[in-house]
Amino acid sequence: MKVVSYRHQGKPGVGVVVGASGVIAMSRATPALPNDLRQILQIDPTLAKVRSAAAGQSADFSLDDIEFDPLIREPHATWALALNYKLHIEETGLTTSPVYPQIFLRMPICQVGHKMPLWAPNRKIAEAYDYEGELAVVIGKPGRFIKRADAFAHIAGYSCYNEGSVREYQGHNRQFGLGKNFERSGSFGPWLMTPDEFGDPAEHTLVTRLNGIERQRAKISGLLHDVPRLIEYLSEGYTLQPGDVIVTGSPGALPLRSGEQAEKPVGRVVVAGQLHMRPGDVCEVEIDGLGVLSNPVIEDPTPMR
Amino acid sequence: MKVVSYRHQGKPGVGVVVGASGVIAMSRATPALPNDLRQILQIDPTLAKVRSAAAGQSADFSLDDIEFDPLIREPHATWALALNYKLHIEETGLTTSPVYPQIFLRMPICQVGHKMPLWAPNRKIAEAYDYEGELAVVIGKPGRFIKRADAFAHIAGYSCYNEGSVREYQGHNRQFGLGKNFERSGSFGPWLMTPDEFGDPAEHTLVTRLNGIERQRAKISGLLHDVPRLIEYLSEGYTLQPGDVIVTGSPGALPLRSGEQAEKPVGRVVVAGQLHMRPGDVCEVEIDGLGVLSNPVIEDPTPMR
Repeated sequence: MKVVSYRHQGKPGVGVVVGASGVIAMSRATPALPNDLRQILQIDPTLAKVRSAAAGQSADFSLDDIEFDPLIREPHATWALALNYKLHIEETGLTTSPVYPQIFLRMPICQVGHKMPLWAPNRKIAEAYDYEGELAVVIGKPGRFIKRADAFAHIAGYSCYNEGSVREYQGHNRQFGLGKNFERSGSFGPWLMTPDEFGDPAEHTLVTRLNGIERQRAKISGLLHDVPRLIEYLSEGYTLQPGDVIVTGSPGALPLRSGEQAEKPVGRVVVAGQLHMRPGDVCEVEIDGLGVLSNPVIEDPTPMR
Repeated sequence: MKVVSYRHQGKPGVGVVVGASGVIAMSRATPALPNDLRQILQIDPTLAKVRSAAAGQSADFSLDDIEFDPLIREPHATWALALNYKLHIEETGLTTSPVYPQIFLRMPICQVGHKMPLWAPNRKIAEAYDYEGELAVVIGKPGRFIKRADAFAHIAGYSCYNEGSVREYQGHNRQFGLGKNFERSGSFGPWLMTPDEFGDPAEHTLVTRLNGIERQRAKISGLLHDVPRLIEYLSEGYTLQPGDVIVTGSPGALPLRSGEQAEKPVGRVVVAGQLHMRPGDVCEVEIDGLGVLSNPVIEDPTPMR
C-alpha cells in the first residue's frame, strides 16, 4: 500500500494510491480519521484502518490533481544520519564510530513534498547547496528499548528523502546545526510504502539524479548501521513516536564524467564528485520498487534585508 | 507579564500569573484563544490579546493547583547552543568559532515542565547525566534575515531551561544527537516573562543549584554570541516560527567545595566540577528577576527489555 499526504483544492488530506495514479481520499473513505498522517499513525500505527478503508474503493482523483505535502508534515522528530554508507566512509577518509550511529535532527520547516520547489539559498549567503539521496523510515508503533529482532514491527513504512544540505553553514562550527536545516532545503516523499510491499530495505538500491544524470547509486545493504540497529539505538534514549522519521544516510557521489568539472569547493565539507544544486535544476531520488521523489530547484525568494 | 502552560484537573491550558501565586485561566478570560502557548503565539505574537484579556481579572486558581507543562509543549524547533559562555570556553580549553554559533536541536519529548520529574537514565546504559542551566528565548513574531538591531522585536519572552545531557551518548560520535535528547532529560519553565518586564537579558544572572548547593553562576552578559546575534544567525537559514525556542548555552561549573570529590569521569565530555544528577536529587535553575525552575530527579521508570 502506498499512502500520500496531499493538498487537494487547498485542503490537507491523506490518501491511498490505487492503480497507476488514482488517489482514494481518506476524508471520504473514512471521515473519522484525521487529515494528517502523523495523527493517523498515533491511532492506527500499522495503517490497518487506512488499508481496510481503502479496500475495494475506487479513486476520488488523480495524483495529477494534488499537491504533495512532505509525507509527515510535522514530525515530532526527524533523525538524520551522517556517514552511514561503508563505501562513502572509505572514499572520504572521514572517521565515524563503527559502534554508534552519528545522528542529528532536522526540523519540519526544512522539508517540502514531491514536486514542490526546493529553495537554493541566496548565493550571497551560501553557494554549496548539495543533494543527499536517502531512504527514510517512518515509525508506526511507539516503543522503547526495542531489540533488533523486533525493530521491523515498529515501522509503518518507507519513503525517499533528499537531505539537502548547505555546506558552508554545516561547516560553521562542529555541530551541523543550521546547515542541515535551511528552509525548504530538503524533500520527503512521494509516498509511504508499507513494509509488506517494500520488503527488506537492504535489498533495494538508491539512486540520485541531477538533471537526469546519475550522481549517486548505492545498495542499501551498504549501510554501516542498518535500519534495525538505528531503531534499537534511538529507542535507548526515548520512546519512538508514531510518525518519527529516520533518514538513514547518504552514499557518496559517483565520479564526475569525462569533461565534467567540479566547482571550486566551498566550505569545509567537500565530497568529491558532488555537484551543487542550482536554481533551474531538477533533483530526483529513486528507490527501486518504491518510486521517485522529484523536485525542481528555485532560488529562495525571500528578500534579503 | 508571566505566562504559564499548565494542566488543571487534567486539562491543558495557558494562564497569566497574578500576584504571588494566582493564575488567570485564558480558557475563561478569553475562550476564543487556543489552549496552547505556541498556537496562541501564532495568532498573538506579542501576547497583546493575552495581556488585555488578563487586565483587571482576578485569579481562577493557584499555582499550587496546577501541573506545569513545558512552557512550549511542542516547539517547531528548539535550538540549543554549545560552548557559548566566554569563561566556560576558556576554562575547558575547548574551541569554538568566534564568528558562528555552535547549535544543535532538541526534540519535544526530551523536556518536562517545572516541578515535574526529570528522568535520569537507567545506570545500566548511562552514568553521566548532567544539568546545564540556561536562559531560553521564545520567539513571537516570525521573521527571516532579521538584523541585530531588530532582533528584540521578535522575542515573545524569556524562561529558564535545564538542558540536561547524557554525556556518554553525547560523546558516542561527532554530532551530539541522542545525548541531548533523552526522554524527559531537560526542563523548561516555570513561565514565560515578557520583555517589558524582563529587560535586557545581559543584565541578568543565571544560577544552577543541585540539592541547594550552587554549582553554576554566570552573568548572561558573558555570552559569546548574544541573543540578538543568535536570532540574526538562525534567521539567515529559515523563517523563525512563533514558539521557536533558543536555549542560549550553559556556563561552566563552579569549582567543587573543599572535601567534595568529582565522580570518575565517564564518556568523552567532561566538565571540571560538574556533578552528575542522580535519582533523589533536586536541580534548580534560577534567573534573577524571572524565577526558579526546579525539578526532582527520578530514575527513568521504563523497564529495560
